[in-house]
Amino acid sequence: MPQPIPAAIAAAVAAERGRAATLFDRLRADGEDPPGVSRDPYGPGEQRAHATIAEAAAALGLERTGDPAANLYATWPGADRALPRIVIGSHLDSVPHGGNFDGAAGVVAGLVAVAALLRLGITPARDVTVMGIRAEESVWFQVSYIGSRAALGTLPEGALDVRRVDTGRTLAAHIAECGGDPAALAAGHRALDPAAIAAYLELHIEQAPSLIEAGAPVGICTGIPGNFRYPDAWIEGADDHVGLPRRFRRDAAMAGAEFAMGIEAIWREHEARGIPMAATIGRFHTDPARHGLTIVPGAFHFSLDVRAYDEAVLAALDTQVSALIDGIAQRRGVLFHLGTKARAAVGPVDPGIRAALEAAAAALEVESVPLGSPASHDAAAFAAAGVRMGMVFVRNANGSHNPREAMTLDDFLAGTAVLTHWLAGAVAGA
Amino acid sequence: MPQPIPAAIAAAVAAERGRAATLFDRLRADGEDPPGVSRDPYGPGEQRAHATIAEAAAALGLERTGDPAANLYATWPGADRALPRIVIGSHLDSVPHGGNFDGAAGVVAGLVAVAALLRLGITPARDVTVMGIRAEESVWFQVSYIGSRAALGTLPEGALDVRRVDTGRTLAAHIAECGGDPAALAAGHRALDPAAIAAYLELHIEQAPSLIEAGAPVGICTGIPGNFRYPDAWIEGADDHVGLPRRFRRDAAMAGAEFAMGIEAIWREHEARGIPMAATIGRFHTDPARHGLTIVPGAFHFSLDVRAYDEAVLAALDTQVSALIDGIAQRRGVLFHLGTKARAAVGPVDPGIRAALEAAAAALEVESVPLGSPASHDAAAFAAAGVRMGMVFVRNANGSHNPREAMTLDDFLAGTAVLTHWLAGAVAGA
Repeated sequence: MPQPIPAAIAAAVAAERGRAATLFDRLRADGEDPPGVSRDPYGPGEQRAHATIAEAAAALGLERTGDPAANLYATWPGADRALPRIVIGSHLDSVPHGGNFDGAAGVVAGLVAVAALLRLGITPARDVTVMGIRAEESVWFQVSYIGSRAALGTLPEGALDVRRVDTGRTLAAHIAECGGDPAALAAGHRALDPAAIAAYLELHIEQAPSLIEAGAPVGICTGIPGNFRYPDAWIEGADDHVGLPRRFRRDAAMAGAEFAMGIEAIWREHEARGIPMAATIGRFHTDPARHGLTIVPGAFHFSLDVRAYDEAVLAALDTQVSALIDGIAQRRGVLFHLGTKARAAVGPVDPGIRAALEAAAAALEVESVPLGSPASHDAAAFAAAGVRMGMVFVRNANGSHNPREAMTLDDFLAGTAVLTHWLAGAVAGA
Repeated sequence: MPQPIPAAIAAAVAAERGRAATLFDRLRADGEDPPGVSRDPYGPGEQRAHATIAEAAAALGLERTGDPAANLYATWPGADRALPRIVIGSHLDSVPHGGNFDGAAGVVAGLVAVAALLRLGITPARDVTVMGIRAEESVWFQVSYIGSRAALGTLPEGALDVRRVDTGRTLAAHIAECGGDPAALAAGHRALDPAAIAAYLELHIEQAPSLIEAGAPVGICTGIPGNFRYPDAWIEGADDHVGLPRRFRRDAAMAGAEFAMGIEAIWREHEARGIPMAATIGRFHTDPARHGLTIVPGAFHFSLDVRAYDEAVLAALDTQVSALIDGIAQRRGVLFHLGTKARAAVGPVDPGIRAALEAAAAALEVESVPLGSPASHDAAAFAAAGVRMGMVFVRNANGSHNPREAMTLDDFLAGTAVLTHWLAGAVAGA
């Protein structure tokens, strides 16, 4: 079957504008939790979004299946069902009071791409599966990529026993409540065989305004950062009286402040050397049960997320952070209790997919720039499992993980057209 | 009446060792709240301590009266009751989970001093009143010196309406619950006329280990610091995604960290110039309702207490803090919301009382050093009202406002002997 011309693909995607707009409206209503939306993973918010996407997949006539982690698979059957399939996916959960697009846009893009190719009368050579992934956001269970790693059989040891920070219930209990099968996951069930996946594609809104700065609606991903994290670290000093001279203090909050400034200095130095990275201290706080206006803080709590695109850079950062901590502990007479350390590997993009996406953007006359992903994505879990992977980013002025996300439908459709053009090539017969 | 010789005073105070030990044990039991003691002001903890002190005063045959702020006055009547009296006092409240001695030791010292002079058969020329003061610790109502200022008619505007941070009930409601009369206070009632007070003396454990460092059991106060405070300040930035490049961030916690380091730098610079001061950021925290591992913090809360012994130094510090804040706000694109600003004036020690206390220590062969008070005290409220004031500090290894306070009974009795020697002189007839 000949590949459709770019103009036909652009027109078919544009004709799906109404489906996209309606789906986004439905998803926003599903997760409404002012300010913003909360699609809590393995909870009511995410559950409603899954129902909405399943209904939209049914309207397109796609096969709908699940797995023990309660992920959703909507499959457009190919001519040869034995060939490795294409998976287009993203997650349907959100952070608390987040935006409507972080995650969900990638699932809607998958449905729109399939709808556009259906509209062009194409029969795919291989299966195309749009995947609605569970529980990507680590803020809830402090474990990332839960749905995708559960499907790929790469969930970390002990993950089923972690508790959602707000409900206090285990991941296993939450999965069971949503119709999943935690016992099967515990027994090592793997819903997706990496060898049976030809490629994993994910469209995602950008989490930074780099595309605004570049004046391009679309970014083609060059890589997903790996990270190391301390979700629950704390500093032990001594509670003391407000009048205590400085030489006697073991002020845990001042140690925390010096740590934060040290982390920022490391980042500045990497910027100066042109090495991309990011560091975030998301939780940074004295102990609410002990702190007060006239008490020198004896305890200080923090989280740390450090990310970079190169394993060697990450390893060097790890060493720098350790040296920073040792110096502060020694100078200030405090102890750092770092707690659990989590790691995620760097997610390399497949060079062939990246080149094909760039070619698709050029063919469609959609302006695009190469872009290192600022954030982590399920795509990294697929890459780690050995699946060829690529990503498309869509311009967004106000970052994500907040209700001020600003993605226009035009930009979304431009990114989806690039994805659709790529997909048309990937499912064309020999 | 001739003044007793130092050896007789030392012996009389030593003979009161058992009374002191028993009173401290009773007070500890009254406030027991592991770890440490909580004598919550205008609450059950402080209430029990007042009952214990009233009972001890009754055992000594002292007159017991109260006032609309529910302070306790235990008076040893003088030969001429029309003469201005001596007040020896301190507070009976504590911080939450604090030590047993911060405050209460000064009240016990007053009773022991009177008991020792009674033992010596002295009749005082003028009244001596031991005062058990309410609600000195500002951590509860975020207002300091409540009991002493209420007695002196200098409670700040609006103080009766502030709410205790743990109960959420107003100061007026708490005072009424403890048998006080908030309506009288609101109408401007003043229990103590400064002109009718010859001197106010206060013994207090030291809140720093300076006396440990100096190897002396007793410090003679050279001054009480004034302060300015922001009990409820916060920084407004923007919540953003963990992957956001640094140039786009408005990280409120990083702004807080830079602020803390800036405050510390100002303090270091004063230390280098030999100017005593202290600065404490007791609360220092991201917003528990919004923060998370993968969210750049958009809000950061803090308190600030800055203290010094000279009004001109305080004014210059105020200017430096404002300049620091302006610079950070501009560089980081954040807003500082400072909220209420509280001030307390510097509390000067009367030079004659200080000299007499130093002479008393020398006569008793108690090693003493001059010491700027690290902390604020009710004595500062008396000084601000125009009362001649002096203080005696007792050695303490582990600071106060924590359960690890370490004052020996020997050191307490040494400080009390100095106070008693001074008192013997002050109540001697012409």
